Amino acid sequence: MILDGREAASAVYETLKQQISELSTPPKLTVFLVWDDTSSLSYIAQKRKYALYVWMDFELIRLSAETDEASLLAHMDEKNSDTTVSGIIVQLPLPKHIDTKRVIAHIDHDKDVDGFTPASIGNLFLGEDRYVSCTPKGIMRLLAHYDKEVEGKRVAILGRSNIVGKPLALLMINAGATVTSCNSRTQDVAEITRWADIVVLAMGQPKFLKPEMVREGATIIDVGFKKVNGTIFWDADYDLLKSRTDITPVPGGVGAMTVAMLLENTLLAFKRTHQYS
Amino acid sequence: MILDGREAASAVYETLKQQISELSTPPKLTVFLVWDDTSSLSYIAQKRKYALYVWMDFELIRLSAETDEASLLAHMDEKNSDTTVSGIIVQLPLPKHIDTKRVIAHIDHDKDVDGFTPASIGNLFLGEDRYVSCTPKGIMRLLAHYDKEVEGKRVAILGRSNIVGKPLALLMINAGATVTSCNSRTQDVAEITRWADIVVLAMGQPKFLKPEMVREGATIIDVGFKKVNGTIFWDADYDLLKSRTDITPVPGGVGAMTVAMLLENTLLAFKRTHQYS
Repeated sequence: MILDGREAASAVYETLKQQISELSTPPKLTVFLVWDDTSSLSYIAQKRKYALYVWMDFELIRLSAETDEASLLAHMDEKNSDTTVSGIIVQLPLPKHIDTKRVIAHIDHDKDVDGFTPASIGNLFLGEDRYVSCTPKGIMRLLAHYDKEVEGKRVAILGRSNIVGKPLALLMINAGATVTSCNSRTQDVAEITRWADIVVLAMGQPKFLKPEMVREGATIIDVGFKKVNGTIFWDADYDLLKSRTDITPVPGGVGAMTVAMLLENTLLAFKRTHQYS
Repeated sequence: MILDGREAASAVYETLKQQISELSTPPKLTVFLVWDDTSSLSYIAQKRKYALYVWMDFELIRLSAETDEASLLAHMDEKNSDTTVSGIIVQLPLPKHIDTKRVIAHIDHDKDVDGFTPASIGNLFLGEDRYVSCTPKGIMRLLAHYDKEVEGKRVAILGRSNIVGKPLALLMINAGATVTSCNSRTQDVAEITRWADIVVLAMGQPKFLKPEMVREGATIIDVGFKKVNGTIFWDADYDLLKSRTDITPVPGGVGAMTVAMLLENTLLAFKRTHQYS
């Protein structure tokens, strides 16, 4: 089976569109971009495209690469206190002269729809739904969309980043999975991936996962990629794996879900502020 | 080898005593207790004993079991804004008519020396040392005291509570371990415990871990216990395990470290507020 992120995302968009059409004013998502590297712009274009598709307001605040931290924080203050703005995200990476940690922590917790502030992470840990960061949330939703149970399953997560591996481990633990978190120092990784019912790849090691490393019928979620000479390579050897596992295609896998979860979080933030149930 | 928590804690106390003796005013730890169940009182007595031993001020605010939430929060406000108070903890459990989550979140983040607020948990996740909750921090310190490496090791954690299993999994992941989190739905647990270099027990299942479930020379950390007819039983079968593993004794294992870490966090909080380096 192919775990089609575009199909699952499209179901989310239809629900969002329906719900937003019933509101008297639309939620607004504000994105800060402090420089113009082309990959950031293409990510933002995706967010904008789907925000507009579900009738959400979208606002991009572009600041030059020379913007200093104080002035970025001042711009953020304005949006933090603007009641028409439901969600605020800061496109990463930021230029080196700006302290990313301080900027992220400056987002009003009630508008932190990327779920990157310490308070949001703490809530994810505690099992609260405000606001779970978008890629791990998208993985959980994709599995649910294809009726893949998680409770009681063995999950191997390769990679331990703050935005994928670690928060996903917490979500899986909360959902009752037996979770093994692996990193570059893990020995005998193949032993662990063969043990697992679900393997999540988030490393950036081209074609790392081969068929002999997983059990027949395992579920493979691939979010790791690396650009080599302009070509993107993913962590799973998709062509060899697709016939014997249930696997996410690339592109069209988890990436599609990430944007959908961002917009869902923005609607949640709107509803919370406006006291919807 | 016996991993003696009292010995490791005593090293921490000597360091704290030395550092506090050099301050012009001592840090103060404030403890809120909303009812008088006897086990809470004996835990508090331990904290008080060692606080006084290291020359730290200690204050117990006892409120009756009928105290309502608003009045508890008002008492907390007073201590949140009292600059002579460095650390605040609320002894759990609270009476049922009080919302524990709201009370914990009400502790000033800079005084949250138990590390239970969402912001503190988020910082633990991100690898910041403000303030790591005391039992998982105590386990990491106990291992370090006995020169037990964690990086690259295989760690099995049995139990996924918010105060031991989950935060410890994050600390171990941050330290570079390969971590498997198990829960009551995990199948073939013995396969996982035999795989592990370090096994942490935090379930509350009397004498669950038997010698045949671990490899020779494994490290066993036992924090799980259950009272049966007035007798405390721990998760490891200590008498059978002590000759072939490195293991924490009970009592005198991790419990002793928990109090030491609480006082260390209180000194950290003091130093941060007073701009010590």
